[in-house]
Amino acid sequence: MADSGRRIYLASRPEGMPTEDNLVLESMPIPSPGDGEMLLETVYLSLDPYMRGRMSAERSYAQPVAIGQTMVGGTVSRVLESRLDGYAAGDYVLSFNGWQTHALSDGTGVRKLDPAQAPLSTALGVMGMPGFTAYVGLLDLGKPQPGETVVVSAASGAVGQVVGQLGKLKGCRVVGVAGSEDKCRYVTEELGFDACVNHRDEALPQALAAACPDGVDIYYENVGGKVLDAVTPLLNEFGRMPVCGTIAHYNDTAPPSGPDRLAGFMRAVLTRKLTVRGFIQSDHLERMPDFLKDMSGWLKDGRIRYKEDIVDGLDNAVKAFQGLLQGENRGKLLVRVVPDPTRGNA
Amino acid sequence: MADSGRRIYLASRPEGMPTEDNLVLESMPIPSPGDGEMLLETVYLSLDPYMRGRMSAERSYAQPVAIGQTMVGGTVSRVLESRLDGYAAGDYVLSFNGWQTHALSDGTGVRKLDPAQAPLSTALGVMGMPGFTAYVGLLDLGKPQPGETVVVSAASGAVGQVVGQLGKLKGCRVVGVAGSEDKCRYVTEELGFDACVNHRDEALPQALAAACPDGVDIYYENVGGKVLDAVTPLLNEFGRMPVCGTIAHYNDTAPPSGPDRLAGFMRAVLTRKLTVRGFIQSDHLERMPDFLKDMSGWLKDGRIRYKEDIVDGLDNAVKAFQGLLQGENRGKLLVRVVPDPTRGNA
Repeated sequence: MADSGRRIYLASRPEGMPTEDNLVLESMPIPSPGDGEMLLETVYLSLDPYMRGRMSAERSYAQPVAIGQTMVGGTVSRVLESRLDGYAAGDYVLSFNGWQTHALSDGTGVRKLDPAQAPLSTALGVMGMPGFTAYVGLLDLGKPQPGETVVVSAASGAVGQVVGQLGKLKGCRVVGVAGSEDKCRYVTEELGFDACVNHRDEALPQALAAACPDGVDIYYENVGGKVLDAVTPLLNEFGRMPVCGTIAHYNDTAPPSGPDRLAGFMRAVLTRKLTVRGFIQSDHLERMPDFLKDMSGWLKDGRIRYKEDIVDGLDNAVKAFQGLLQGENRGKLLVRVVPDPTRGNA
Repeated sequence: MADSGRRIYLASRPEGMPTEDNLVLESMPIPSPGDGEMLLETVYLSLDPYMRGRMSAERSYAQPVAIGQTMVGGTVSRVLESRLDGYAAGDYVLSFNGWQTHALSDGTGVRKLDPAQAPLSTALGVMGMPGFTAYVGLLDLGKPQPGETVVVSAASGAVGQVVGQLGKLKGCRVVGVAGSEDKCRYVTEELGFDACVNHRDEALPQALAAACPDGVDIYYENVGGKVLDAVTPLLNEFGRMPVCGTIAHYNDTAPPSGPDRLAGFMRAVLTRKLTVRGFIQSDHLERMPDFLKDMSGWLKDGRIRYKEDIVDGLDNAVKAFQGLLQGENRGKLLVRVVPDPTRGNA
């Protein structure tokens, strides 16, 4: 092969924040497809918080990535060469090729994309795993009722921005928690959240209480830490807490120092009869057809909007992922590995 | 009136363990029933962990007991004099007269008891609130499936003993956690639990893990503290945790010292997709007819057994309640305020 591909593999398990010592970029040969295979080129690589869990040896949703293995991740890819029925060079697919420029596929777990229907990148965001995570977590687990108050943390992120807009669609008061005034402005002014509180504000508990005069019926949990501490006292009887992530703790190398908040949390669960439920979207795939139908409709009629934060070049992936864990992204974070010819690159 | 009644009222809010400075016994006049009222004499007073919450000013299920108010509680009472249709002197009723010898009632919230059907005291235990708490929490919230593993803390207590036996009825492996070898022997040898672990054993985590070779599908939570810490790592994917109580913390005057276990707990909730749900039986009263029918059948055919710990005399109530919070009772704790003529007093 003339061109060399590139990949980022897990060279060692991070202690705390992952670095380029843990996630190493190297060149690799571009493979040739055998019979029943196709060669895919990554256009977009999705960067998502769950990836931090895969880098650790600890028990998580799924098997950890092995040392030496290419880091996993969802991708939008272009078919370069196909020896697989149903796929032709130039097709676009949603796949799970990970942090690399090229990969072979036999079609397993791959879905063809139509760039005329929606921008390709949305298959990794609002129309993909993050949007589906918001949909299942808020609608099926949170069960929002008109007039209820929904709080969502990481409100401007890939999941949070959809959660809040779905809450508004269901007639709820929606309060976001985000990490800057700029993000808060975005979700209130552009996405229609009723209020948003900056979690870097020292008066977070007071500000959140003021934004939730009727308490909180649903807390869509993405972060943990001090946001969870601020929301817990506000939860109403029969409050629901779909637990989607605890990003504030993903880089923890030891349990946070005391006091121990667990007893107080369990007391709140008990006396206010809360339901706290962890979930992952892949356990709810029977809802995917409903999601795709609903979400494409909401996108077309403008009832759901979204924001993407696109970083160019696989060599910037590690830095972008570090930023994600620190809340530096603005909307759904993607690496554009090669230009997307189906749309402008702005 | 010739005789004087007695009551125990909340004189001050306890810091930590309640004492006789907080719960003061005094004599009182015995009231006379007006038209549409009856005079009740307390035969049995139920002592239950939830009462500790009512002594505090903090938000709990219900309003705190006011300073000066008679301490609340479920009672089995005898009608001494009735000017209320449908009730006659000599009848027995389930009522909520609190820590006192006598009370007037207009019949609200009162249910007549037939001592020929079941011992009167069971209306406060296996056939009453604790039994119903076990029934709703395990069956409706825990949803036990044959072959699953159920762990229940405070296993020999009024609720725990029923939870474990219901788990066995549903075909589960049942593991108790209790505070002595004696209690453990009772639940395994007399109630049919598969295993029981002593939480005062330093090797509690190891012992519990050994008793649950297939992990834990349902943890019926009555205590919190180190038992919760020992169970959490064992919970299987999609595990359920009905939260009925956190008695290990009821006397806490400040949050326990660190490290902070909340982040680790939420990580378990997330990655193992646990459902943690607080509840109180009174939100589920629509299930009471099913419970009474099922439980009376199970008692009659010997599939559910129970143990009571009966203390004589209202003047021993405070000491008995202290013992309850320290796990000194053996089975459902009751104060026999006056002799029960419908059965021997052994």
